[in-house]
Amino acid sequence: MKLWLGTGLVAEDEARISPFDRGFTLGDGLFETLRVRAGAVLRLNAHLARLTTGAGVLGLPLPTLDLAAALAATAEANGLAEGVLRLTLSRGTGPRGVLPPAEPTPTLVITAAALPAPAAPARLVIAQGTRRNERSPLAQVKSLNYLDNILARQEAARRGADDAVLLNTRERVAETSIANVFAVIGGDLVTPPLAEGVLPGIMRAAVLAEGAGERPLTPEDLRTAEEIILTSALGLRSVAALDGRELPGRTVAEQLRARIPGA
Amino acid sequence: MKLWLGTGLVAEDEARISPFDRGFTLGDGLFETLRVRAGAVLRLNAHLARLTTGAGVLGLPLPTLDLAAALAATAEANGLAEGVLRLTLSRGTGPRGVLPPAEPTPTLVITAAALPAPAAPARLVIAQGTRRNERSPLAQVKSLNYLDNILARQEAARRGADDAVLLNTRERVAETSIANVFAVIGGDLVTPPLAEGVLPGIMRAAVLAEGAGERPLTPEDLRTAEEIILTSALGLRSVAALDGRELPGRTVAEQLRARIPGA
Repeated sequence: MKLWLGTGLVAEDEARISPFDRGFTLGDGLFETLRVRAGAVLRLNAHLARLTTGAGVLGLPLPTLDLAAALAATAEANGLAEGVLRLTLSRGTGPRGVLPPAEPTPTLVITAAALPAPAAPARLVIAQGTRRNERSPLAQVKSLNYLDNILARQEAARRGADDAVLLNTRERVAETSIANVFAVIGGDLVTPPLAEGVLPGIMRAAVLAEGAGERPLTPEDLRTAEEIILTSALGLRSVAALDGRELPGRTVAEQLRARIPGA
Repeated sequence: MKLWLGTGLVAEDEARISPFDRGFTLGDGLFETLRVRAGAVLRLNAHLARLTTGAGVLGLPLPTLDLAAALAATAEANGLAEGVLRLTLSRGTGPRGVLPPAEPTPTLVITAAALPAPAAPARLVIAQGTRRNERSPLAQVKSLNYLDNILARQEAARRGADDAVLLNTRERVAETSIANVFAVIGGDLVTPPLAEGVLPGIMRAAVLAEGAGERPLTPEDLRTAEEIILTSALGLRSVAALDGRELPGRTVAEQLRARIPGA
């Protein structure tokens, strides 16, 4: 496998990050997960726009090179017609300390992976062990600080589930460890607004563009929903059960799949 | 400079981390900052105990090698009689995805740095831009997810201050971007309890052992304090001003420095 590092492609074995890279020492950076479909990156501009917004929050300069060309080159070098790219942008190396260097040299990495096999409808639990911090601007940034999501995902595994819904500090629904959450309630398709501590998912935006609405959701709202759907850049996933309650509904997910490319 | 990587010392130029290391891709790991004094690591057992506790929260296996010996070897290889060691332990490489591998091979890095020059009393602000998440177990773990602290430190710099106090989601005092916070209020030396979203600092514990108390602190408590003191593994730092109000008190800090090694 080849990956993009800095300004060009390198063999996987030769690609190495400095132990002083702030991505490694402090989680100081961003990433994007992008779906490659028929040889092209799906919703590329939306991903690059989110990366740019996140870089603004972190005060991180974007590389001057053409990111679209680097993504395309990485896909091509790996013969990736269908698959997943991950773009990581860290602040690069720095001396000891929390304050970033005034003129950082960010580290850019792009890796390629096969498309995961289609997953069966997910069995979900509501995470008890941690909460998503809707009071931090990072809740809306796809940053390298993923430990709360990792803790929630580990909790799901311990409880025999595929993924976990993270609540925010107000005990309302935010998202799962890897996906945005939509629910059909009284026939309406709704998802929590960004202020609830929600990552502005690219597929989430595509579903909203189909007419879904935004409103805060309580755990009880989810528990009584007619249908629950998870969205990520890799597609839609129906929810088979939440905290042990079976959810037979698949109708809205099927309608969305028919209308949204890559859903 | 030489650093410890995995099982031994390597030259800085030769030390490289995999771009697939979960420390780099997801901030999936822990660290400790340790003070070296007269050639020995200060409060080594307390640091190793905190690392062990954090590894338990993350479900991260500790290396089987002797960490104390690795720290000592790194200090010695760099001729470090007075200085700072940083031990980083990430979950190591893994395939795409949030769930950690069942049997990870953690990455261990130990780096050495000179002791920073003694800093003048700090000018602080209370961070407006983000909040510390006291609802996450990570608030009490020295993890690689440092972006909220970085945002607060950047805000301090923008506002002409040396550091920023992070409030928790209940609008109470947690800590600064790099230190625990003590305040003298009505003659009593107090600091917020861990449940406020406070890292269990090693120097914090040493100050508590000298008779300081724990209680939740509001921003108003800090604004009316007689004296404010910051603590970290690297020592005590007096606070010269908070949000522009000058704080002349240094008495308690001087008493603590006389009694606590490395303070």
